[in-house]
Amino acid sequence: MNKKTFSLDLLAQDGLARAGTFHTPHGDLLTPIFAPVGTQATVKSLTPRQIEETGASLVLSNTYHLYLRPGAELVAEMGGLHEFMQWHRPMLTDSGGFQVFSLAAMRKVDEDGVTFKSHIDGSVHRFTPESSIGIQEKLGADIIMAFDECSDPNDPAYNRKAMARTHKWLERCIKSKSRDDQALFGIIQGGVDEKMREESVKFVASMDLPGIAIGGLSVGESKTEMYATLDTLNPHLPEDKPRYLMGVGTPEDLLNGIMRGVDIFDCVLPTRLARHQAAFTHSGRINLMNAGYAHDANPINAECDCYTCRTFTRAYLRHLIVAKEMLASSLISIHNIRFLIKLMEESRQAIQSKSFEVYANTFLERYLHSKETN
Amino acid sequence: MNKKTFSLDLLAQDGLARAGTFHTPHGDLLTPIFAPVGTQATVKSLTPRQIEETGASLVLSNTYHLYLRPGAELVAEMGGLHEFMQWHRPMLTDSGGFQVFSLAAMRKVDEDGVTFKSHIDGSVHRFTPESSIGIQEKLGADIIMAFDECSDPNDPAYNRKAMARTHKWLERCIKSKSRDDQALFGIIQGGVDEKMREESVKFVASMDLPGIAIGGLSVGESKTEMYATLDTLNPHLPEDKPRYLMGVGTPEDLLNGIMRGVDIFDCVLPTRLARHQAAFTHSGRINLMNAGYAHDANPINAECDCYTCRTFTRAYLRHLIVAKEMLASSLISIHNIRFLIKLMEESRQAIQSKSFEVYANTFLERYLHSKETN
Repeated sequence: MNKKTFSLDLLAQDGLARAGTFHTPHGDLLTPIFAPVGTQATVKSLTPRQIEETGASLVLSNTYHLYLRPGAELVAEMGGLHEFMQWHRPMLTDSGGFQVFSLAAMRKVDEDGVTFKSHIDGSVHRFTPESSIGIQEKLGADIIMAFDECSDPNDPAYNRKAMARTHKWLERCIKSKSRDDQALFGIIQGGVDEKMREESVKFVASMDLPGIAIGGLSVGESKTEMYATLDTLNPHLPEDKPRYLMGVGTPEDLLNGIMRGVDIFDCVLPTRLARHQAAFTHSGRINLMNAGYAHDANPINAECDCYTCRTFTRAYLRHLIVAKEMLASSLISIHNIRFLIKLMEESRQAIQSKSFEVYANTFLERYLHSKETN
Repeated sequence: MNKKTFSLDLLAQDGLARAGTFHTPHGDLLTPIFAPVGTQATVKSLTPRQIEETGASLVLSNTYHLYLRPGAELVAEMGGLHEFMQWHRPMLTDSGGFQVFSLAAMRKVDEDGVTFKSHIDGSVHRFTPESSIGIQEKLGADIIMAFDECSDPNDPAYNRKAMARTHKWLERCIKSKSRDDQALFGIIQGGVDEKMREESVKFVASMDLPGIAIGGLSVGESKTEMYATLDTLNPHLPEDKPRYLMGVGTPEDLLNGIMRGVDIFDCVLPTRLARHQAAFTHSGRINLMNAGYAHDANPINAECDCYTCRTFTRAYLRHLIVAKEMLASSLISIHNIRFLIKLMEESRQAIQSKSFEVYANTFLERYLHSKETN
């Protein structure tokens, strides 16, 4: 290990927005950064080379999914997740916690862990902090996540119990971790309750881990609540550690997150939207299925430099969609991922030149309120 | 137009097998050659760049499909098929005849043309030799095909009527053709009847077109009948024109076709097999869904130089298949197309070094009779 591994070089700050470099065994992450999601060891419909060409340098994969299929032992036998899926840049795995709570057919939480039924075949399984870390060590991502309980933000009593359990589980995760080429990030919970969030951020920060994640947002609360929670957390977050806002998301949430000091984001949104024919443009989101694009010789987004926009017309993409051709998903995914990656690259530049607020406001004004006809 | 456009330089012969170069407005075709099929202006699940990387230099697209969706006028408005799908190497369109007879929901043939119902929405349409050429001129492929009637090889009486009609239609196609940057190929019909095939090849050859196609094979007749028909045709085929065996196909049919003087092939097989998890190897066809590949760290085919074989294990591909990930189809399609393209490249070399029979027999012995465990 390089002795700088898992350290963050903070290069610039502009208000609360930060530009930095986080060092991992598979390369540097230039923050702020957006990670596309490769749920089942593949970013849906894209080859690793196509993902690289979007400029992505971090891919997230899901412990819950890989544990069920093909199994962590098999991935380990194939040399770990990087080798298995042939992605040689940094990777992050989540703990499986969120999927157990959102996807599993049944779950039962106790102080020790969670018993759940697979959404695939109903078979019964159990995750504990120790087993989650064990699985993530077999998968071998650069950044691994503490096993947490993601509870309903609108149920304060349960939320408090869940938060306390998440803190205890974090201590067990730290204790059971054995690989020094993986960074464990702790996760702040507490729903949208200011007091609980303060308590949680202080606890997680006190563990002095190489990174700190904000969980339990983008799960149904309002944008106002999400941004208010980030405002609450900011003064308590260690300056010298990357902050990761999990499961976010939209261009507006990314910019609002950066504005509140977040460094790392991940979301299935760009690839999921692509499978529903929706694409990001500077003038807002468009649906390429619309008949209005049938004769449109423009690219999805004239300002975009992705392979899809450099190569294909909206008319062709709409034809692929109407004809139910798989290529449509791949081409729109390439664009949507590139769109968010470029938003992050430009944010970083703007932070370094102390013009982030203007950059973000200009982008958002046009993105959210455009009257342009797409 | 270069004056050599649509001429064939015959570089070598080995028995009846031929190696040549056919000049088209979008580049040279080095024969023997295999063309993957891009039915709806896309080779399913692959970007044009991925197709290029298989070494493919000719792609076929289907007039019937493009006429129905998105319409030939739209393709013309977008600059033609090459521009529309961003494939800048040579293209071939069929006449729509075969699809009308195999796919349409209803069809009614008369001396003037065919009335049919769309398989998509049941709407009624009509193709004539003139309209087929008109559509193909709007699409703008380098090689276009005469409108023919593909009849049941086991109904000699109907077959004779259909063949006579196909010949009359060929004359009308020639007459209605107006673009000089497209080569029109006539199509030999006649089922598996030796006399009718002789009659048909003589008629089509007498039209002195830049290429000649063999239709009505690979439609249910036995391999023995297919090869016998090629044997019947060979002495009557002009030496200086490329011969195109339509809709073929398997590695064994390609080699047997070359052995009988065929230069050009096309087939949906490599991409269709890929969507059913099947892959070509030198030891025969394998199905990657098989549990036996779950822990297999080998590529699909160790001797293959495609992106998929250079990059991924069978274990990973099987995982993608089991997890129902689209990427599986793309990666196996890349391999299967490359496998057939490479078979053609090696055949061409073998013909040039006068060793084609040994090459073909060595390949076929292993491919068809391998005892190797895949």
